[in-house]
Amino acid sequence: MNKHALVAAIKEKKSYLCVGLDTDITRLPKHLQSSPNAVVKFNKAIIDATKDACVSYKINTAFYEAQGLKGWEAMQETLHYIPRTHFTIADAKRGDIGNTSAQYAKTFFETLPFDAITVAPYMGEDSIRPFLEYENKVTIVLGLTSNKGAENFELQKLYGGKPLYEEILTTVASWGTPDNLMFVVGATQAKSFLHIRQIIPDHFLLVPGIGAQGGSLKEVSHFGLNSDGGLLVNASRAIIYASSGEDFADAAQKIALNYHEEMRPFL
Amino acid sequence: MNKHALVAAIKEKKSYLCVGLDTDITRLPKHLQSSPNAVVKFNKAIIDATKDACVSYKINTAFYEAQGLKGWEAMQETLHYIPRTHFTIADAKRGDIGNTSAQYAKTFFETLPFDAITVAPYMGEDSIRPFLEYENKVTIVLGLTSNKGAENFELQKLYGGKPLYEEILTTVASWGTPDNLMFVVGATQAKSFLHIRQIIPDHFLLVPGIGAQGGSLKEVSHFGLNSDGGLLVNASRAIIYASSGEDFADAAQKIALNYHEEMRPFL
Repeated sequence: MNKHALVAAIKEKKSYLCVGLDTDITRLPKHLQSSPNAVVKFNKAIIDATKDACVSYKINTAFYEAQGLKGWEAMQETLHYIPRTHFTIADAKRGDIGNTSAQYAKTFFETLPFDAITVAPYMGEDSIRPFLEYENKVTIVLGLTSNKGAENFELQKLYGGKPLYEEILTTVASWGTPDNLMFVVGATQAKSFLHIRQIIPDHFLLVPGIGAQGGSLKEVSHFGLNSDGGLLVNASRAIIYASSGEDFADAAQKIALNYHEEMRPFL
Repeated sequence: MNKHALVAAIKEKKSYLCVGLDTDITRLPKHLQSSPNAVVKFNKAIIDATKDACVSYKINTAFYEAQGLKGWEAMQETLHYIPRTHFTIADAKRGDIGNTSAQYAKTFFETLPFDAITVAPYMGEDSIRPFLEYENKVTIVLGLTSNKGAENFELQKLYGGKPLYEEILTTVASWGTPDNLMFVVGATQAKSFLHIRQIIPDHFLLVPGIGAQGGSLKEVSHFGLNSDGGLLVNASRAIIYASSGEDFADAAQKIALNYHEEMRPFL
């Protein structure tokens, strides 16, 4: 699914919700924990329960890698289970010198056929270019993240007076188009959205930090939406761990539908 | 192997060479390409041929991930084949919000028991802390990298006048100790080593960019060594692809021994 199909899905469904599959094997409901394929079973039930409310799924690669081979197998199986009507994101935050980034692009655009991957900008242009070379794929570069550590470097002022993350938005935007580039902007920084929309009015923003991290969906929607929708608001823990009992999928559905209802009037 | 054992190995062997296993399946010698376990066979031959000349191996995770499940299996098998007398680095350049970084730390310190991992600093303190919490493991944070893209952001001047990478060295150094923290500093920036040694005199520097990327071993050694050694100079392509024929291991050994001979007088 490319960006244009994503825009169409958002408009049709009146949802810009992304469900984050940060599936931690130690946090699965007890009745699943002894199952040999517990993570996949859990993910499939979450996908079945939430797919009507969302337009995208984001797989956080760390939680799968931590389980080694079995984890990669679970990631693969989960990705293939996601309906093609949904935009799939590898939340992998990769980035390296050119020939290595090309291998990461191959990993997450070919070996695992995701629609998009998150990428770290620190190493600059040649670390991002190999991702942008894929047609109909989207590279989502870290801008201003939702964690406390964003203060350490992302918000540092550069010589000219603007913060580093702004320089990154401006510079990286010049390497691609709003069709093949998006940016991560955390919901905990909702006040910055007005300003960010002046810098990159047309790009999609992937917005983590709603729910468990405390960001406000209303504020983000108010300041962040554009004529394409332009937002993918992600919730992970708030949805997938809504209940730790046998009713986990129903509980996840309820939260996802709540988000959807909150989003509907904005579109 | 922890940092103290690494220092002892460097002093005993008079080598600070790290061999980078960036094993690209499309670049293997022809006679191996049809073998079912070609990457592992290649890596084992390279390790056997180079282990006397080097003190460390760095596995570039991208090249293994690109092969999917088989690649992770090959990474695992390669890691377990590396002698315990050598310092093992997962060149993974990970980094995310705290609970996700904790999963990456688990991946590369437990599931795959590497001695060290490379980490990207953009997201700040809580993205790095989970790695530092492991005893006898080493976190290697990107400082000034060897690629052209280093100009885009790493070398940008901050408000106070110093470049971003310096701020990162200083700030990150305050979160750990020279026992659990090292930094990546590219060899193509050899002139910066004198200055970097004023900022972080005691930390080890992992130095890529020798060989294929054109950095000078002499310059790096002259400006970068400290009383612990304090350098791990990495060569990947220059060693592992020294020959594309059946003599690839002999050719790799020859190049590795050359590096070792160049290093010996400096210690």
